[in-house]
Amino acid sequence: MGNSLGKRFIISSFGESHGKCIGIVIDGCPAGLSITENDIQTELDKRKPGNMLSSTKRAEADKIDILSGLFGGYTTGAPICLAVWNEDAKSESYEKTKDLLRPGHADYTAFMKYGGFNDYRGGGRFSGRNTAGFVMAGAIAQKLLDLIGVKILAHTVEIGGIKTNSYSIISQEAIDNNALKCVNPKAAEKMLAAIELAGKEGDSLGGIIEGIALNVPAGLGEPIFDTLEGGLAKALFAIPAVKGVEFGAGFAVSKMKGSENNDAFRINRGKIITETNNSGGILGGISNGMSIVVRVAVKPTPSISQKQKTVDIRTMKNAEMEIKGRHDVCIVPRAVPVVAAMMAITICDFALQSGIIPEVIK
Amino acid sequence: MGNSLGKRFIISSFGESHGKCIGIVIDGCPAGLSITENDIQTELDKRKPGNMLSSTKRAEADKIDILSGLFGGYTTGAPICLAVWNEDAKSESYEKTKDLLRPGHADYTAFMKYGGFNDYRGGGRFSGRNTAGFVMAGAIAQKLLDLIGVKILAHTVEIGGIKTNSYSIISQEAIDNNALKCVNPKAAEKMLAAIELAGKEGDSLGGIIEGIALNVPAGLGEPIFDTLEGGLAKALFAIPAVKGVEFGAGFAVSKMKGSENNDAFRINRGKIITETNNSGGILGGISNGMSIVVRVAVKPTPSISQKQKTVDIRTMKNAEMEIKGRHDVCIVPRAVPVVAAMMAITICDFALQSGIIPEVIK
Amino acid sequence: MGNSLGKRFIISSFGESHGKCIGIVIDGCPAGLSITENDIQTELDKRKPGNMLSSTKRAEADKIDILSGLFGGYTTGAPICLAVWNEDAKSESYEKTKDLLRPGHADYTAFMKYGGFNDYRGGGRFSGRNTAGFVMAGAIAQKLLDLIGVKILAHTVEIGGIKTNSYSIISQEAIDNNALKCVNPKAAEKMLAAIELAGKEGDSLGGIIEGIALNVPAGLGEPIFDTLEGGLAKALFAIPAVKGVEFGAGFAVSKMKGSENNDAFRINRGKIITETNNSGGILGGISNGMSIVVRVAVKPTPSISQKQKTVDIRTMKNAEMEIKGRHDVCIVPRAVPVVAAMMAITICDFALQSGIIPEVIK
Amino acid sequence: MGNSLGKRFIISSFGESHGKCIGIVIDGCPAGLSITENDIQTELDKRKPGNMLSSTKRAEADKIDILSGLFGGYTTGAPICLAVWNEDAKSESYEKTKDLLRPGHADYTAFMKYGGFNDYRGGGRFSGRNTAGFVMAGAIAQKLLDLIGVKILAHTVEIGGIKTNSYSIISQEAIDNNALKCVNPKAAEKMLAAIELAGKEGDSLGGIIEGIALNVPAGLGEPIFDTLEGGLAKALFAIPAVKGVEFGAGFAVSKMKGSENNDAFRINRGKIITETNNSGGILGGISNGMSIVVRVAVKPTPSISQKQKTVDIRTMKNAEMEIKGRHDVCIVPRAVPVVAAMMAITICDFALQSGIIPEVIK
Repeated sequence: MGNSLGKRFIISSFGESHGKCIGIVIDGCPAGLSITENDIQTELDKRKPGNMLSSTKRAEADKIDILSGLFGGYTTGAPICLAVWNEDAKSESYEKTKDLLRPGHADYTAFMKYGGFNDYRGGGRFSGRNTAGFVMAGAIAQKLLDLIGVKILAHTVEIGGIKTNSYSIISQEAIDNNALKCVNPKAAEKMLAAIELAGKEGDSLGGIIEGIALNVPAGLGEPIFDTLEGGLAKALFAIPAVKGVEFGAGFAVSKMKGSENNDAFRINRGKIITETNNSGGILGGISNGMSIVVRVAVKPTPSISQKQKTVDIRTMKNAEMEIKGRHDVCIVPRAVPVVAAMMAITICDFALQSGIIPEVIK
Repeated sequence: MGNSLGKRFIISSFGESHGKCIGIVIDGCPAGLSITENDIQTELDKRKPGNMLSSTKRAEADKIDILSGLFGGYTTGAPICLAVWNEDAKSESYEKTKDLLRPGHADYTAFMKYGGFNDYRGGGRFSGRNTAGFVMAGAIAQKLLDLIGVKILAHTVEIGGIKTNSYSIISQEAIDNNALKCVNPKAAEKMLAAIELAGKEGDSLGGIIEGIALNVPAGLGEPIFDTLEGGLAKALFAIPAVKGVEFGAGFAVSKMKGSENNDAFRINRGKIITETNNSGGILGGISNGMSIVVRVAVKPTPSISQKQKTVDIRTMKNAEMEIKGRHDVCIVPRAVPVVAAMMAITICDFALQSGIIPEVIK
Repeated sequence: MGNSLGKRFIISSFGESHGKCIGIVIDGCPAGLSITENDIQTELDKRKPGNMLSSTKRAEADKIDILSGLFGGYTTGAPICLAVWNEDAKSESYEKTKDLLRPGHADYTAFMKYGGFNDYRGGGRFSGRNTAGFVMAGAIAQKLLDLIGVKILAHTVEIGGIKTNSYSIISQEAIDNNALKCVNPKAAEKMLAAIELAGKEGDSLGGIIEGIALNVPAGLGEPIFDTLEGGLAKALFAIPAVKGVEFGAGFAVSKMKGSENNDAFRINRGKIITETNNSGGILGGISNGMSIVVRVAVKPTPSISQKQKTVDIRTMKNAEMEIKGRHDVCIVPRAVPVVAAMMAITICDFALQSGIIPEVIK
Repeated sequence: MGNSLGKRFIISSFGESHGKCIGIVIDGCPAGLSITENDIQTELDKRKPGNMLSSTKRAEADKIDILSGLFGGYTTGAPICLAVWNEDAKSESYEKTKDLLRPGHADYTAFMKYGGFNDYRGGGRFSGRNTAGFVMAGAIAQKLLDLIGVKILAHTVEIGGIKTNSYSIISQEAIDNNALKCVNPKAAEKMLAAIELAGKEGDSLGGIIEGIALNVPAGLGEPIFDTLEGGLAKALFAIPAVKGVEFGAGFAVSKMKGSENNDAFRINRGKIITETNNSGGILGGISNGMSIVVRVAVKPTPSISQKQKTVDIRTMKNAEMEIKGRHDVCIVPRAVPVVAAMMAITICDFALQSGIIPEVIK
């Protein structure tokens, strides 16, 4: 259970790391949206392993295959099934160590939940590869958001303790300027050096990604429970490795006074705005027309080549293991387009719930 | 929309701050659970305004009224409707300032979403009073969790920048030891002083609450989307003023290496445990048998008596306002039982989904 | 579980026959709809026991109490909780026979499902009294449908084998013309005589109700699974005693040829219509702009005063019982407004899903 | 929207008649269930066009392809995606007549709902081919039901007005004895003759299918809204051409007295049974331990080769059309395994909701 998300733009995920494919079904996409394979492939390519030292060496072609829901280049109102077929999956390496619980991974919890029947190869259902499905669905969500002028940007703001200090001008171009998806080139350089060092030490690094939704109209969100924060958080926690989500001033509110944190309302060119954006564009769970700003904490890749203490689940004895194979030293840059995708999917869902995006695009 | 939460233990909220009542309907509670009015009243009383200087002077009796779902002292399997009837609601004060958008509140977003038809008195549907419903449902969820030995604790770990440094021994008694729900008496003293000072300045303070679920069995959670983190986060963001949620090491993972963050598995008395708990008891979105640890950031109460810049929504002109009336300087201590309630509700929902709590209690 | 219905106009039912109240919460009603207590009371009164010999003697005032969701006479977008408070409930009579399973009732199945914890007084949760909640929600749904010109009518077409042969002109006035809700006065007379005779024999009668939705726009319904037929059927089967649902030609299609059953399309005043309406206004699960026509089979009231064979659930022995008390000989006329309500609720839900009724009424 | 069904055994359908494939995703299938391709293929083969004159000549190989959710021959708890790849789709024939609305089909309603963007080839999303997905999911549901001893049977009870009078002994073998899925060989012969005659006349026939679920434990169903009747009806109305659903005595209750319709409870070998089964095994929306009996009315195939009156949707003028191509004269026998599949899916969903089938099969 739990493999569907959304109320009006509903995505259902299937597939495993070393199974036949990774897939996603989108139910509720309005009819009449023009979509090409290229629209989706462009987004998929963004989460590909880069040229960095830091990335997995698994060659993932990840070529989009549209299985249903399009006709003559337009969505039909029917469910859209999208898949990428798995290639280059080396499963043998997992056989030898399948009883050793990799620390930081879902091996143990999946074993307990599914009685040991889970596909353990490459993490199976818990692999980051499933985010390929998120990105495919996100590409379609972004196309719908384009219709109402909403644009999602995500970028790296911290890796291994190195922060991006200033990022006054954020654009997709600035983000794509380097492999780290960091708009500050100097910080990016330091981050890269830190990643390379960690890689040499057989270690890994975590970081923070910030997502921004520009031009979201006021009025999205369905409190008391389906708040914009709650919806975005739930979607973002579906990304493996995310351990924290904060909006606007976030955890810093614990040190602020009301007089500092409250965003003053002002009239600006006949429109209501707030002077500051500590709320992250959300008040009472509903968008207020300012940029939606969210930050997610991404833990260091659990697969490291250093020797680790663990347990053998069959013998129930303490053991040690070294994880071989192809792994990202730092998953943060590859998670950036995934954060953008989950934001697009969620905001698109709320926009459809509010009727701001209609059932048929004309 | 969006006023129901859960898949198997489903709560539906209704009511407004200055309407007839605050209510909650619970659908999916197993039959055969013994419940008394007192079980619920005890929890409700925990969120009452305390004797502190910091609390609202509104006299809320908040006496539980069980409208359905119980028979002979036991749940019947039918929906349980619980209500508290509103009293002492002074609505007139809101009339005069109803067109002035209170900064940090949902006045503006509610106006935009509901076309100005929202009940603005005391925040109406967006009032913290709705959390009385959460606490009533949480009391029943905790009774169900008692059956499987799960205990939820929540406590204040930071207010106005003052942190609880050590809290090695946490118990409900230690939490209830002071009005701040802080297990460190010295920190509590400093927090109280800070709150009193802020109150005198016509200002307010935010803070951080930590929730802990003890003895949760491994295997709860329904990834890929209905993760334990996502479910808890969505529930916690329904609490007004929450702007961030993190699990285990949380945002600190951005500064950690994999070798530091990974929790080593070990055999302990025939059971698998982890040596550390940076994961907050959750791996791959599923509980791993360790304590579930979550922290939420609570913003400073937006209602402050200092003069604030705002907008008059009818005239669409800049304006100033001073918020009079009875308001908590710091909502954090009163939000502590609400955090515990939302955790109990969510974990109970997952336990029912997994079949760990049965359909009929015997 | 299972006490909520709908995706966009969501009703959640609570209450028991001999509990404090019967209630319904509506989540998803647009803001800005003008509603008075009288709008709802008028509909509630239609399901009151009539002056007929056939009706229960229980005096049910059933006075509407609006607990939330309205402000200044308009809906606010918040959940609307509606209740009627139970009076005149004579519970003692149920005590004596509580272990005897009344044939045709839910006593046995409720006992098995809820482990004997169910409230057995007056059928408890399974009482027809819960349909008071349906009718209250239906009144609000009909107000929303008024905005798009949709009108629901329901009427009695058969009781105890006596059919209404011709009912060329159907209007609410014609339906309300007699206590049987039958537009053919002569048939109504015969039905009444049959009911009186059955009553004297200590027996009961079933019948058929037809529901018609006029002026439904083409395009409502969400196949492949959320078809208009499926949605209406599910809603109608929630009415106790309903054992069959058919649309348009219904079961008669088994005797028809395609050339007879197919409804020819024609242009009529610039609009597409069908010459006949064997489809009952639904093709492929979606409305086609013709009247939606549905018929439901209502079984004879299971409570009869004749001696019946049964089982004592505690002793697990065969037994006999005679059901005393106040019961309708034929529930059909009182179920007529309930059928209309469930149709209004369902069609309103689909209209909101399609965006035909907006989120805010202006 | 509306392409998912179920709460605990959730099926999501995708695909079109002339697209790449017909697929179904199952979320919520317990881990540890042994499944082979052959288990599913066997069921798929049952809905293949038979050797009868009456069946479409389209050669559908319909070879099952398991895309996810299985590992080492067992379900893993992950979503199971099943597909059949479309072959032999002759789309050109639909091009010429695409603007002519086929009477009795969804051409018009799909056009209205999806703004003309729907895939019209072979009915696209509205084709009976989508029931291949239902049957694949049904095969897995039946495997789960086998674990608790529940067996679903469906058979033809009426075609073109010819009824099966006696069918005291029903077994899968008796049903599969002839191409009509009718347990009475003499009636089957007459039905076949009627179908052949209708085929020669360029016409089509409808009928009635009965579904029976044996050995269903008492206590399944989630009233007040998620009744067993409502759940089954909704699932069955998803089968194209179904226009009526009735349980037990069904529409005949309109002619019965309470004393006739009530099923007397009796003790039989220490178990509670009913002497008759007019309720169709369901009381108060919950199973009572007797066989669940449902009948569905199937309309005559709308595709007939006779000349029909219609409308050209582009010119908005009256027109005539003759439907060429390969069509079943009577869809009833091919719908029999689909009825069984939808029953299995629905009852399996309720059994999982009740916890009768566990989360992991051991």
